[in-house]
Amino acid sequence: MIGGGVGGFIGAIHRMAAAMDLQIELVSGAFSSDAERSRETGSQLFLPPSRTYPTFEEMIRGESTLPSEQRPDFIAIVTPNHLHLPAAQFSLQHGFHVLSDKPATLNFNDAKALRESVKKSGLLYGLTHNYTGYPMVKEARHLIRSGKLGRIRKVVVEYPQGWLPIRLAAGQKQIWRTDLKLSGVGGCVADIGTHAENLAEYVTGLKIHELAADASNFMGRLDDDINVLLHLENNAKGVLHTSQICVGEENNLNIRVWGELGGLEWHQTEPNTLLLKWPDRPAERYRAGTRYLGPAARSCAHTPAGHPEGFIEAFANIYINFANHIRAVQDGRNLAEDDPALDYPKIDDAVRGMAFVEAVLESSAANAKWTRLGIG
Amino acid sequence: MIGGGVGGFIGAIHRMAAAMDLQIELVSGAFSSDAERSRETGSQLFLPPSRTYPTFEEMIRGESTLPSEQRPDFIAIVTPNHLHLPAAQFSLQHGFHVLSDKPATLNFNDAKALRESVKKSGLLYGLTHNYTGYPMVKEARHLIRSGKLGRIRKVVVEYPQGWLPIRLAAGQKQIWRTDLKLSGVGGCVADIGTHAENLAEYVTGLKIHELAADASNFMGRLDDDINVLLHLENNAKGVLHTSQICVGEENNLNIRVWGELGGLEWHQTEPNTLLLKWPDRPAERYRAGTRYLGPAARSCAHTPAGHPEGFIEAFANIYINFANHIRAVQDGRNLAEDDPALDYPKIDDAVRGMAFVEAVLESSAANAKWTRLGIG
Amino acid sequence: MIGGGVGGFIGAIHRMAAAMDLQIELVSGAFSSDAERSRETGSQLFLPPSRTYPTFEEMIRGESTLPSEQRPDFIAIVTPNHLHLPAAQFSLQHGFHVLSDKPATLNFNDAKALRESVKKSGLLYGLTHNYTGYPMVKEARHLIRSGKLGRIRKVVVEYPQGWLPIRLAAGQKQIWRTDLKLSGVGGCVADIGTHAENLAEYVTGLKIHELAADASNFMGRLDDDINVLLHLENNAKGVLHTSQICVGEENNLNIRVWGELGGLEWHQTEPNTLLLKWPDRPAERYRAGTRYLGPAARSCAHTPAGHPEGFIEAFANIYINFANHIRAVQDGRNLAEDDPALDYPKIDDAVRGMAFVEAVLESSAANAKWTRLGIG
Amino acid sequence: MIGGGVGGFIGAIHRMAAAMDLQIELVSGAFSSDAERSRETGSQLFLPPSRTYPTFEEMIRGESTLPSEQRPDFIAIVTPNHLHLPAAQFSLQHGFHVLSDKPATLNFNDAKALRESVKKSGLLYGLTHNYTGYPMVKEARHLIRSGKLGRIRKVVVEYPQGWLPIRLAAGQKQIWRTDLKLSGVGGCVADIGTHAENLAEYVTGLKIHELAADASNFMGRLDDDINVLLHLENNAKGVLHTSQICVGEENNLNIRVWGELGGLEWHQTEPNTLLLKWPDRPAERYRAGTRYLGPAARSCAHTPAGHPEGFIEAFANIYINFANHIRAVQDGRNLAEDDPALDYPKIDDAVRGMAFVEAVLESSAANAKWTRLGIG
Repeated sequence: MIGGGVGGFIGAIHRMAAAMDLQIELVSGAFSSDAERSRETGSQLFLPPSRTYPTFEEMIRGESTLPSEQRPDFIAIVTPNHLHLPAAQFSLQHGFHVLSDKPATLNFNDAKALRESVKKSGLLYGLTHNYTGYPMVKEARHLIRSGKLGRIRKVVVEYPQGWLPIRLAAGQKQIWRTDLKLSGVGGCVADIGTHAENLAEYVTGLKIHELAADASNFMGRLDDDINVLLHLENNAKGVLHTSQICVGEENNLNIRVWGELGGLEWHQTEPNTLLLKWPDRPAERYRAGTRYLGPAARSCAHTPAGHPEGFIEAFANIYINFANHIRAVQDGRNLAEDDPALDYPKIDDAVRGMAFVEAVLESSAANAKWTRLGIG
Repeated sequence: MIGGGVGGFIGAIHRMAAAMDLQIELVSGAFSSDAERSRETGSQLFLPPSRTYPTFEEMIRGESTLPSEQRPDFIAIVTPNHLHLPAAQFSLQHGFHVLSDKPATLNFNDAKALRESVKKSGLLYGLTHNYTGYPMVKEARHLIRSGKLGRIRKVVVEYPQGWLPIRLAAGQKQIWRTDLKLSGVGGCVADIGTHAENLAEYVTGLKIHELAADASNFMGRLDDDINVLLHLENNAKGVLHTSQICVGEENNLNIRVWGELGGLEWHQTEPNTLLLKWPDRPAERYRAGTRYLGPAARSCAHTPAGHPEGFIEAFANIYINFANHIRAVQDGRNLAEDDPALDYPKIDDAVRGMAFVEAVLESSAANAKWTRLGIG
Repeated sequence: MIGGGVGGFIGAIHRMAAAMDLQIELVSGAFSSDAERSRETGSQLFLPPSRTYPTFEEMIRGESTLPSEQRPDFIAIVTPNHLHLPAAQFSLQHGFHVLSDKPATLNFNDAKALRESVKKSGLLYGLTHNYTGYPMVKEARHLIRSGKLGRIRKVVVEYPQGWLPIRLAAGQKQIWRTDLKLSGVGGCVADIGTHAENLAEYVTGLKIHELAADASNFMGRLDDDINVLLHLENNAKGVLHTSQICVGEENNLNIRVWGELGGLEWHQTEPNTLLLKWPDRPAERYRAGTRYLGPAARSCAHTPAGHPEGFIEAFANIYINFANHIRAVQDGRNLAEDDPALDYPKIDDAVRGMAFVEAVLESSAANAKWTRLGIG
Repeated sequence: MIGGGVGGFIGAIHRMAAAMDLQIELVSGAFSSDAERSRETGSQLFLPPSRTYPTFEEMIRGESTLPSEQRPDFIAIVTPNHLHLPAAQFSLQHGFHVLSDKPATLNFNDAKALRESVKKSGLLYGLTHNYTGYPMVKEARHLIRSGKLGRIRKVVVEYPQGWLPIRLAAGQKQIWRTDLKLSGVGGCVADIGTHAENLAEYVTGLKIHELAADASNFMGRLDDDINVLLHLENNAKGVLHTSQICVGEENNLNIRVWGELGGLEWHQTEPNTLLLKWPDRPAERYRAGTRYLGPAARSCAHTPAGHPEGFIEAFANIYINFANHIRAVQDGRNLAEDDPALDYPKIDDAVRGMAFVEAVLESSAANAKWTRLGIG
């Protein structure tokens, strides 16, 4: 693992997610750019000192010399944003599969370059757009793919947060999120807007092809409020809005989709329920852990109905699918197109995410002009 | 009452709303352009035949000759849209106050003309943007005016409906809603988009000054899906979307507002709850009928907490305030600015509504260009 | 109308409920035992002084001498509890149908005596167990009668309130509710427990035949907290609890029923939704105002789906059915058993309610012994 | 670990819960009474064959001979109910701390005997009444202990399930749950009723001292529907009901508590919200992961607000506290009374649970007579 020193948020999440299913073991780490903090983190995680490194370069080099049964099967990258790319490139160059926190890169061009590297390497690259790991998000995708809503006409996807107005002060851990060089172009739009974009495309199976955007900056650094009109494939229309200034909101990611035959609705704050709406009969409350769900939702369930699954379980579903894909590669097995092991965000999602970010900023600067996404 | 023949929806709503508080009595009507249907409606409503008329002109003329204690105090107009204006003009010309269903007119120019007529007449004009009659909408307005949320930064207002895809066929009662000559410019945007616009401005106290819009037409007549980016006064940003193709939605009008200090959320489908959200303490569920509410919400309550108020009670609150304003005028009483009797939508709301409709259509036709609302 | 002087709660509710559907006109009243207050109430309601009386006896005598087209079709009784019985008896004796607020009487024996009077008189008697007027309560009953849940096994019905701990002080209007002579045997159990009992029997179609109860008295007057185990017909089991000391609760009447095939759930605070639950498929959210509902729910709808109906509309449904029953009697029409006009609580419900109250108090006094309800 | 062969439900939950926080490592197991299945389970969990045993006796003996740094720090017992006691006794006799799934024993006498063994051994014993691991359950307890609700007056706790009517057939894995010899006295009441009992006592800090119960048996084996009136310490009253025949219910454990000053409400199906209700101000929605929570809820949070925690995280909180208590014992550290490491269910909870089960069955057999719980 690269990044994730003690006290940080996302590193601990990644570790819990990886550990939960008892299939993935943490074997080494370069947990911080502060060597002492890295060492201390490793110690707290019961790693031997020899497997805790002061820099990611030393770690990758060191681990790559180990015998194959000791070497890690993949590298998880959970650093601040600006290190995602170099850490990923360095890992790929040394023959390691990569599972990276998002965003993959700081801009669209870098994302395309990384895609080239991944393709050349022949290695696997996963990106933790973790919300697609929820069972009921997979069920939503399944129901739409199977035609239950008919042709999709409208999508509304939202990700309001409210932490920015209250928590930000110089010296705080999250401050890099509002620094252009550390977090990349796009503040809110890159940080959480891409989760919304990815969710919309994952659930509907439709790509956003153009958008008209209004990016605002209430707090004086990067954009912190984004409102976007969407045109998706097949003439579907949509709205995406995301914000860090919605005081009082938690991580209120949610999506609603309407097709010719019905609509659906899912909220991350109550992730085990998926509401299906029909024109002429009662709405239905699909619930995680039940027997009537499709194969994707069933195969990733950790608990039976009424025993709620949470954020870490969803995150774990990204990890376990990625790990199972690696296993299949290691075993030389071919996977069917709908094998759950292939169901995790990949380098193409990373590229589309950065295309989305740049289109939003471009449209907003151009009087909300309809702007096409760069070819992902 | 003009319009509202038996079997129609909105006429019956108006009558129940007017009757509920035992302050307003229906005394006469021209209920239908079909004289027989008008007569039959009057009979079912226990009106004497002499007070039931085949046309609104005959009614207005007839009633205006009655002694003042028999004459109606105001005329309620509940016809299809295209007759709202002529019925209102004719009523005003004969000295009657007017309470009209919305939209007031079929376009912006007509709305401005009507405003002229109202001003010249010295009479009162009310418009049933009825959703502002809900106690918790009034509470939302009150809390924002009193500064509890601080400066407003963002507004999201929605009015998705799903009836269009399933219910519309030639010969059906609602068909005029999709006919340009009968319902006016704007389909969905005029029919329900103006409710959303009016609600947003009423609750926040901020006017929309420009917008960028995407109007779609899935069903082949008028616009039936509208997505709009908003710029409001004081640099507030917003999103408004409304639709008639959101299969499975009922009348899901709702609004969320975030200020510097907190946020709020209200849904018409559960109208007796107003959620207040704070950055550093638990969200609060304000409930209709309680004692901690502000004067506006308290003064219009029909029932104590936990005994839900519904759509008709909200509608009744428009009627009763309008009636009380008329009484004050009749009595020569001056009302304080915050007197509840002044709290109903007026001709200026009507003009702003039509300005909104035309700006939406203009922006949408111009590649989502930011477009200013006509001066309301 | 007898009782319901200005400033009281339930009289105003009755009047709004009666007026709403434009079928019932208030023509006279003895609104208060205080003659001046009665006169003032009549004046505010636009009644002529001649039709406002200082006592109910004078009113009943006076009105009964009027020509039949002026005479009221029925008497509504909305006094404090201890006057319900004498006012009803006096009205029946003078040939008037009676619609009474509950409880009908102060004890079981009186209820049986009143039943005798009603039967002898040949007149109609209605009791405003108003919660059964909600469309979705009627739908619940319809679904169970039509066998959708299979044989009923379990019922949980609750009516917690929280007003007692905070609002009660000598001199307050509601104080009679805790005085044995004015409100009858049973405090909480009679005041709201009978609503729960009536709701459970109405919805399930099963009668409670024995119960084991625990009645408490936290505030020092009458019972204010009641917990009851139920045995219903057909071997169904149940729980009923009701309280006035549940601080923070509004009027949280709700019911859940489970049968062999499915379960249902309804809450008065969100009365337009009925949740149906199934063992092997998603729960369904039935909504008021939709087209898939059964005839009882459809026939009493005031608004389309998504335009919420409230407490007063439910109350109005009791009034309008009672009025329609009177009309049928006046017209000499026979009604089919399932005619909506017959769907209102009657004298038998009143008797069962008092039997329930007395069984609760008896069981509680006898160490929670299983106690049969008096034969209703 | 004893029990928990692949394919079972609760063993996998225990393992995920233990692994999640990266503090507990599975080192050995006797996973099934079927030696082959035990071996296969160990292999799937990456255990060396030498640490996988065919019987728990062999495992305990084998592991107790290992050097202390290899020996497990405690034994987790996740077998069918009838083996909980022998496995615990055997583990204690060989010097191992024990964390057992519930119920600890098959009856009250055995529970008291086990308590003796635990006390004599000086070892730690934990019982996975896992629902008390939820952050918002801990917050509920904290708020009540700190006096925010005032003196507690009423508790309603429910645990309806609906799986029995549909899933049970001979040969099915869960069939032992309805067999007296394998699951112990009490069916539903022991299996899930004790969770409700434990939750009520944990949250309120009040012990149930007597009860009046009605146990039913709809499916023909053990009791499957239980309705109970409660008397708790300090004159608090309550209702507990639990069932396995509530068709359509998932694991709908929930609790409501009312005190003199306010009420609270928590539902396991939406476990990250705790509703606080007040007599004279808006209800408050406490949310997991926020900064305003008390120390108990904060210290066990895995994720920030809006990133839901689920069932496994709650379960993990039992494991991690138990493990931290063992560490303190191993380190010779004394813990303060309110140290989180002491916050897990212990042998006294086990004894009280069985006292509750026997009192329920005794009262139900005695005409719902008020029956005291055996001295726990």
